[in-house]
Amino acid sequence: MPTIGVWLAGARGSVATTVAVGAAALKAGISPPLGCVTEVRGFPDVLVPFADLVFGGHDIAGTSLRKRAERLSEAGVIPAPLPSLLAQDLAAADAEIRPGYAPGGGVQAAAAARLIGDLTGFRDRHGLARVVVVNVSSTEPPVVWRPEFECLADLEKALASGAEILPPSSLYAYAAFHAGCGYVEFTPSTGPALPALAELALRAGVPYAGRDGKTGETLVKSTLAPMFAGRALRVRSWSGLNLLGGGDGATLADPAARTSKEISKDRAVTGVLGQGVEGRTHIDYVPDLGEWKTAWDHVTFEGFLGVRMAFQFTWQGCDSALAAPLVLDLARLVARAHEKGRRGPLPELGYFFKDPLATDEHGLAAQYARLRAFAEELSSGPSPRGGSAPAARSASPRA
Amino acid sequence: MPTIGVWLAGARGSVATTVAVGAAALKAGISPPLGCVTEVRGFPDVLVPFADLVFGGHDIAGTSLRKRAERLSEAGVIPAPLPSLLAQDLAAADAEIRPGYAPGGGVQAAAAARLIGDLTGFRDRHGLARVVVVNVSSTEPPVVWRPEFECLADLEKALASGAEILPPSSLYAYAAFHAGCGYVEFTPSTGPALPALAELALRAGVPYAGRDGKTGETLVKSTLAPMFAGRALRVRSWSGLNLLGGGDGATLADPAARTSKEISKDRAVTGVLGQGVEGRTHIDYVPDLGEWKTAWDHVTFEGFLGVRMAFQFTWQGCDSALAAPLVLDLARLVARAHEKGRRGPLPELGYFFKDPLATDEHGLAAQYARLRAFAEELSSGPSPRGGSAPAARSASPRA
Amino acid sequence: MPTIGVWLAGARGSVATTVAVGAAALKAGISPPLGCVTEVRGFPDVLVPFADLVFGGHDIAGTSLRKRAERLSEAGVIPAPLPSLLAQDLAAADAEIRPGYAPGGGVQAAAAARLIGDLTGFRDRHGLARVVVVNVSSTEPPVVWRPEFECLADLEKALASGAEILPPSSLYAYAAFHAGCGYVEFTPSTGPALPALAELALRAGVPYAGRDGKTGETLVKSTLAPMFAGRALRVRSWSGLNLLGGGDGATLADPAARTSKEISKDRAVTGVLGQGVEGRTHIDYVPDLGEWKTAWDHVTFEGFLGVRMAFQFTWQGCDSALAAPLVLDLARLVARAHEKGRRGPLPELGYFFKDPLATDEHGLAAQYARLRAFAEELSSGPSPRGGSAPAARSASPRA
Amino acid sequence: MPTIGVWLAGARGSVATTVAVGAAALKAGISPPLGCVTEVRGFPDVLVPFADLVFGGHDIAGTSLRKRAERLSEAGVIPAPLPSLLAQDLAAADAEIRPGYAPGGGVQAAAAARLIGDLTGFRDRHGLARVVVVNVSSTEPPVVWRPEFECLADLEKALASGAEILPPSSLYAYAAFHAGCGYVEFTPSTGPALPALAELALRAGVPYAGRDGKTGETLVKSTLAPMFAGRALRVRSWSGLNLLGGGDGATLADPAARTSKEISKDRAVTGVLGQGVEGRTHIDYVPDLGEWKTAWDHVTFEGFLGVRMAFQFTWQGCDSALAAPLVLDLARLVARAHEKGRRGPLPELGYFFKDPLATDEHGLAAQYARLRAFAEELSSGPSPRGGSAPAARSASPRA
Repeated sequence: MPTIGVWLAGARGSVATTVAVGAAALKAGISPPLGCVTEVRGFPDVLVPFADLVFGGHDIAGTSLRKRAERLSEAGVIPAPLPSLLAQDLAAADAEIRPGYAPGGGVQAAAAARLIGDLTGFRDRHGLARVVVVNVSSTEPPVVWRPEFECLADLEKALASGAEILPPSSLYAYAAFHAGCGYVEFTPSTGPALPALAELALRAGVPYAGRDGKTGETLVKSTLAPMFAGRALRVRSWSGLNLLGGGDGATLADPAARTSKEISKDRAVTGVLGQGVEGRTHIDYVPDLGEWKTAWDHVTFEGFLGVRMAFQFTWQGCDSALAAPLVLDLARLVARAHEKGRRGPLPELGYFFKDPLATDEHGLAAQYARLRAFAEELSSGPSPRGGSAPAARSASPRA
Repeated sequence: MPTIGVWLAGARGSVATTVAVGAAALKAGISPPLGCVTEVRGFPDVLVPFADLVFGGHDIAGTSLRKRAERLSEAGVIPAPLPSLLAQDLAAADAEIRPGYAPGGGVQAAAAARLIGDLTGFRDRHGLARVVVVNVSSTEPPVVWRPEFECLADLEKALASGAEILPPSSLYAYAAFHAGCGYVEFTPSTGPALPALAELALRAGVPYAGRDGKTGETLVKSTLAPMFAGRALRVRSWSGLNLLGGGDGATLADPAARTSKEISKDRAVTGVLGQGVEGRTHIDYVPDLGEWKTAWDHVTFEGFLGVRMAFQFTWQGCDSALAAPLVLDLARLVARAHEKGRRGPLPELGYFFKDPLATDEHGLAAQYARLRAFAEELSSGPSPRGGSAPAARSASPRA
Repeated sequence: MPTIGVWLAGARGSVATTVAVGAAALKAGISPPLGCVTEVRGFPDVLVPFADLVFGGHDIAGTSLRKRAERLSEAGVIPAPLPSLLAQDLAAADAEIRPGYAPGGGVQAAAAARLIGDLTGFRDRHGLARVVVVNVSSTEPPVVWRPEFECLADLEKALASGAEILPPSSLYAYAAFHAGCGYVEFTPSTGPALPALAELALRAGVPYAGRDGKTGETLVKSTLAPMFAGRALRVRSWSGLNLLGGGDGATLADPAARTSKEISKDRAVTGVLGQGVEGRTHIDYVPDLGEWKTAWDHVTFEGFLGVRMAFQFTWQGCDSALAAPLVLDLARLVARAHEKGRRGPLPELGYFFKDPLATDEHGLAAQYARLRAFAEELSSGPSPRGGSAPAARSASPRA
Repeated sequence: MPTIGVWLAGARGSVATTVAVGAAALKAGISPPLGCVTEVRGFPDVLVPFADLVFGGHDIAGTSLRKRAERLSEAGVIPAPLPSLLAQDLAAADAEIRPGYAPGGGVQAAAAARLIGDLTGFRDRHGLARVVVVNVSSTEPPVVWRPEFECLADLEKALASGAEILPPSSLYAYAAFHAGCGYVEFTPSTGPALPALAELALRAGVPYAGRDGKTGETLVKSTLAPMFAGRALRVRSWSGLNLLGGGDGATLADPAARTSKEISKDRAVTGVLGQGVEGRTHIDYVPDLGEWKTAWDHVTFEGFLGVRMAFQFTWQGCDSALAAPLVLDLARLVARAHEKGRRGPLPELGYFFKDPLATDEHGLAAQYARLRAFAEELSSGPSPRGGSAPAARSASPRA
């Protein structure tokens, strides 16, 4: 039975730490797979069991996963006993974290070579069938476009000449593709969304998915916008204020990074409604909220005979707890797609993203239907579990 | 080209008045068909044009439609100029309103004969191809079940013996079926939802749909519940408070009628989630809200590693403006289904109802997909518009 | 320097446990006095220090305070390290808890004698200057009025005859007054609000205060209602839904107890506005909310030229954390009033209550002004701290 | 009995038009004085009756008041029949509107002379006892400070030399003071808040008040902040999003003007709490909201033992309807203060303003107490109504 590697760029962040703790808890059978889309009753049973995932990653920070997990526990994200209970698994993941790449981190060709070496070393040490790189590091500012992004040959030439032109997320994707790994861009950063990298993924025969995990306010937006559209209620304005604490909020205190996120967030509504609407989405950093996030959205709409009506919602969620199970879903789905020979972007995974690659569909229900169909497709052919797994797995709790 | 009759039980209520004004405004081309599901761009173009609808109905009240429209205009439901601008159409509809049936309104067999006569007379006078009866009268208390409801023969025998056992809504459905008319139960009342009446509809070869138009809070509930289910987020509680003004609220000030409505409202969530959740829905009558309604819903849910999160929304809508275009959609869809030979319940129209008949599907997106497929089906065969209509129609405004 | 006893009826409930833990934490100087009204900068410095309070109480439950504190810690009400850190203080308070009185608990005259013995024993054992009984037990159903409630002689006669006519809260107040203790009714129960008991308090020379601690939604209501009144904005409706988990919610799942609470809650608005308004307050028990409470209020109001406007708020609070510091405030204020010779009801403490005794003032700011004036009055004469305390105290953290 | 002139800078805006219509409706007795603080039952009865107010003003726009009133009527701010019913009064006010001053409007000394002439002409034509200028024109960007603002002599010298250094609001205040008129700065603009103008007001013996009418979200903030402070609940963050339609919103679409408003709005909370809090207030222009405004505020706070809680509110108001009655209150109060010999700033009117001049008190209840005391003071001495008025007036409707 194949074992899969999950390599997290930003491996010591809140999301990655929650992924590591959660995967260990699922493996130990001490937590049900709430929040895991692929574990819902009736979802095609095609993916590698949590117990067959091995974790590693890149990070520029040095705090141990155990320490990070304890902090998340104080913040209410992780139940108090887990960090010590799962200490062994956390230490194992910790041992596979290598120094990450940050802007100004030296010649990019050399950095890429190092990252590639980290990935192949990880695969070889653990005898992994496949590795999927998932970027859960900090959001980058919008990238300034360059001609070298358009074509792989030009990009390779530029890198060879010592240029430092790729944002870190794209350097991670570049390294992943060269190492023969699938890739998931879970942040709003550029990652694989450059023509040159799309070319590289096709050539390397690896699949990838993205962009910007849809975990909270935008999830609700993409659920509600089709309701208005189907009912022929004309949305006139959609305004929102996101209050974020924690690491994510701190990054977004930087206006440039915030811009990336706000653009990504506004796509859901206009993408579904096929029209511009008044209003915009604000993001504020409110440290006191800790790992929690509160978003308020206000919608005005027009119905029969021009009557004006209004709708508002408040979402109070914990981003790390919402993102982590999706990371596990995505890593396993991309690994399976890789196994089945898929390469290039996977628009079928648009359900998971605010700004889905290679598709214009933003409505949640349509995205979900497409995901289910895709999972059915993946389930044909040899099972990733071999012959004996199903019985064992059906004993695991399901949401 | 066939002309269709729309017969409204409760023809002088807020919803019926808004239907009459709105249909006239659509016919005159002075208002776009906002809120009309069947007029959304891309919806199969199969239904009779608004201009080919003729209106009539039953009511126990006597106020003229024009007067009622003026009151709705003061309440902000109808633009100020319309009641006088459309006076002629309103007068025509007014002329086709006959005394309704209320509990204690005499021997039911005789009342039914009178109602049937009203319907056939209406059809004959206007040379209508088909008539659809839509119940938009006040909500009834939950019905006490009787053995005679189980079988048509027993029901007919009981009525023949002078019994008064049917609630008004069911007497309207009984009359409609006997008169060969389709029927839509837009309220939470019993209407056609008795085995004896189902038998009668099949025998009479007429279709029907219901129950309880999904116009506001429940619309949102049935949109959001599948989001939680698909994301494997376990809903722990769902509580709500509905504040209603106007006629609907006054009826629901009666605890018995309110019970019918509250039960209907709680079905959406448990129907989608397949589990009971804590919490309940309250309905309060707040006259000051006039024709408007405000609903607050509060949801708690559990995600990865047991983290608790919360969601709340406030809906501020105008029920008459939300219901009226759906009545026009339903009357035309049922008429077309009738034309195509459908008889008995139409589960394909579950999208419109809080408590859909003959189906367990409550998720809005799934209901919408089924509606679209049904509309495609209805669009095969002879068009209701004849040969020349499409070009003319595409000029009409679409939402 | 005098030492004061705080005797809690319902000594093992969430509020009482939070009081015990909190007082110990304040004494130890490991927590600032947030939530303590009397510790706000500038508040007259007249009360006995937290370190000079001794705790005891009545309860019918047997779980230890430490155990209860650990549960509250899991629920997020008490920081994790406190239950073990303060174990000694909790054990001391535990040792002073005696079996409480519940309906059907035997002849009331005998029960009263036992309760009185408990109180005087407590005072004697610890050499306390004064004891204040605070009722924080479960809410009782509304009491059925009896002629014996009108006059002390009749009440004593009835009790002597073996009658069981007093609700538990009133029996506690009766025992407190006979034992020469002040009393605070922190619940909506009857407690001292019977003419016979008022007579007894005057005769015994003890002060008392109540009723129904104003901790959350009603606190906000009594803050906002004067805003509308002062601005001449006519409130038309005020509706609310309270969702309660935990012990309080479970008690209020009983419709009779809920009635007591709902009546108490509706008084704030009409008391301030001097007019009835449409709408009502609902209370629902939602166990999933644990120790937390969420309340939504919706207000419609009318302004210049009849324009209608709306206001809504959502309060998310932890009742035990809100109530506990007020219990400490009240016990100390009543003890000081007792020391200064006050007897009978203390309308000056209306600031703390939803349904304040002996006053019609419900506006929060007016109540606060009266409280501050009262505290100034209490601060004249001999200080409760002796000569050396002020310096020591000014080092303690202040909100 | 003295007659008072109310001169509105921005006389054709939404607020001014609502003032004109409302004053005429109050005079005609066809509307109760809702929203008028000085007409609340029990408020000292000292002010000139509405019927004794005469209106005029400056504006750079030309649309007639009747036309503007009709538009406000369509927007739901003014009842439909009023614009025609009160046409005569509106025409009279219209006849007294003169061209306003806008930046780039020529040499300021000359412009000031013209404005002064307009004011004295108005007073003379109508034989007015006193005139109060109220600025309700568009919000200006924050002013760049200049040394000439510090002292009247320098300012006069600069103006005499042909400089254009005063923002329009300050030029209006300058003209008002020179003409011997009281002044109210109802916007966040600079107006009289320059040392040189304070000097002029004292010399001219006229009173003034400001700044930035407290009509909606800030009104609520200044009501709630003292609640948290009194209860020793430590506010950790206060965030807000204001969605504005209409003219006010359009002005604030300009980032510079928005800055003035946002600064003014943030003062209420920190002013009351005496501490900085996290979070900020956003203002967005959403044209679809028309004359309405929706604001959401989110507050996090910390209580006993560090427990975190949250509060949020949504305010849906109509700014013109909230502002207009306050303009009538202020004009009458300033006129009476003028009559009683007050000159310079009136801190007693802080109740009306977001950014009150000459006082640090931001708590609403404290401001209200001060206003009432001030009104009592004003009520001593000769009544503005003469001997016979009180009886007549008590017949007028009161809120």
